[in-house]
Amino acid sequence: VAVFLSDADEGAARAAAARGAGVVGAPAEPADVAVVAVPPSWVGEVLAACQKDGLAHWFTDVASVKGRPERDAWRLMAEPGRYAGGHPMAGGERSGPAAASADLFAGRPWALTSVPGTEAEAVRHAAALAVLCGAEPVHLASRVHDETVALTSHVPHLLASLMAARLAAGPAMAAGLSGRGLRDVTRIAGGDPGLWSDIVAANAPAIATVLNGVHTDLTRLLNALTASEEDGMHQGGAYSAIVDLLARGVAGVDRLAAR
Amino acid sequence: VAVFLSDADEGAARAAAARGAGVVGAPAEPADVAVVAVPPSWVGEVLAACQKDGLAHWFTDVASVKGRPERDAWRLMAEPGRYAGGHPMAGGERSGPAAASADLFAGRPWALTSVPGTEAEAVRHAAALAVLCGAEPVHLASRVHDETVALTSHVPHLLASLMAARLAAGPAMAAGLSGRGLRDVTRIAGGDPGLWSDIVAANAPAIATVLNGVHTDLTRLLNALTASEEDGMHQGGAYSAIVDLLARGVAGVDRLAAR
Repeated sequence: VAVFLSDADEGAARAAAARGAGVVGAPAEPADVAVVAVPPSWVGEVLAACQKDGLAHWFTDVASVKGRPERDAWRLMAEPGRYAGGHPMAGGERSGPAAASADLFAGRPWALTSVPGTEAEAVRHAAALAVLCGAEPVHLASRVHDETVALTSHVPHLLASLMAARLAAGPAMAAGLSGRGLRDVTRIAGGDPGLWSDIVAANAPAIATVLNGVHTDLTRLLNALTASEEDGMHQGGAYSAIVDLLARGVAGVDRLAAR
Repeated sequence: VAVFLSDADEGAARAAAARGAGVVGAPAEPADVAVVAVPPSWVGEVLAACQKDGLAHWFTDVASVKGRPERDAWRLMAEPGRYAGGHPMAGGERSGPAAASADLFAGRPWALTSVPGTEAEAVRHAAALAVLCGAEPVHLASRVHDETVALTSHVPHLLASLMAARLAAGPAMAAGLSGRGLRDVTRIAGGDPGLWSDIVAANAPAIATVLNGVHTDLTRLLNALTASEEDGMHQGGAYSAIVDLLARGVAGVDRLAAR
């Protein structure tokens, strides 16, 4: 596969080329498919510009939010039917060419989104790209996708950030007394705040729905902690509320382990 | 070292003996040191009973909360000066003899707590146990210990539970579209709810202090998510609040990586 690389940061494109990702520059003829890899709120604009410049026949993206790019594409592109949304559901907290890994997508789901006006050929090209990368294409409505990633990716990231922010506010010696548990809980909070704030803002409604559930459980937990000091340790509604939250957590972990 | 094993569940003691942990039963003569491994709210009672039965000359425990066991020991033991608190800061979400690992404590901190009335010999025996296990003894006041583990262990566990509880409440298909990030954030929430509810209740005040900070940040984040839909994406105080939380999260992750 011939790959042409372009980036707002030319050094990043050159670094990717040096690692074997392709050649820097635009193709002489339109490519089969353009892959737009920018934060979600910029996808529509960049797709429209790529189409206007005749860079490719078909278009996809890899943003982790799909509703807003889809709406923007249909608002801004001359021929939006030539675009199918994509989201390879893999990756880590590191970004840029230096974090590249040849087997990053192997066996991972790659979400594909489309609307009734999307041409079948656009979806076929996006799916072919996913398969070439070793991933498994999964067709989803953008709303279902966005609600799912709010639960499985965006809210986990924000809870990791909430925990890591407490660590930043606490005494420095605490880090020295921590173990693998804390490191694992907070690791994804190391992701680029510029990219992640865009993701969070672009998927705000779905994220808020899940976080409201967290807020309710957290408020109940705080009330239980205050009450448990009065109740005695192993009885009363306060203690039950703590056990209930922990038991629901175990059920969630079991669900993840069972997949 | 000769080790004598006793457990409320005799099968657990036999399983541990079968894995080479020692022999089941009480020593004929008092042992050098008794190691009490029970949930924090039971430590004082069990220490007092062990001392009354003459099981050992010196006493320590391995509970992950130290203030309450210390207060209980001084209230219940006939000779509380013979007890020094201990907390090996290692372990995982699995418990019981089947989860044992010979190098679990290697290079890990092992907190030791004492009060002015504690005999030096009690601390020396607890420290010797830590060193024998390959751990590094760290002397702390129980209050400092409890505030530290609230931040580095107990609140991370509860945030993992809050996240996993959302997963349990969500659609089953979500688990299939999740990756390592979610698994790492939620893993420790798989710990035994019976033990963890006791830990949480025994360290409620220190945990509540940290969780109140989380609650404040979460409330602010939810307000920002609602406002960001009105403001537009890349401007305004709402967007800044999201960036600010993410940036503080990165600072926390950096602090952990720097230790």
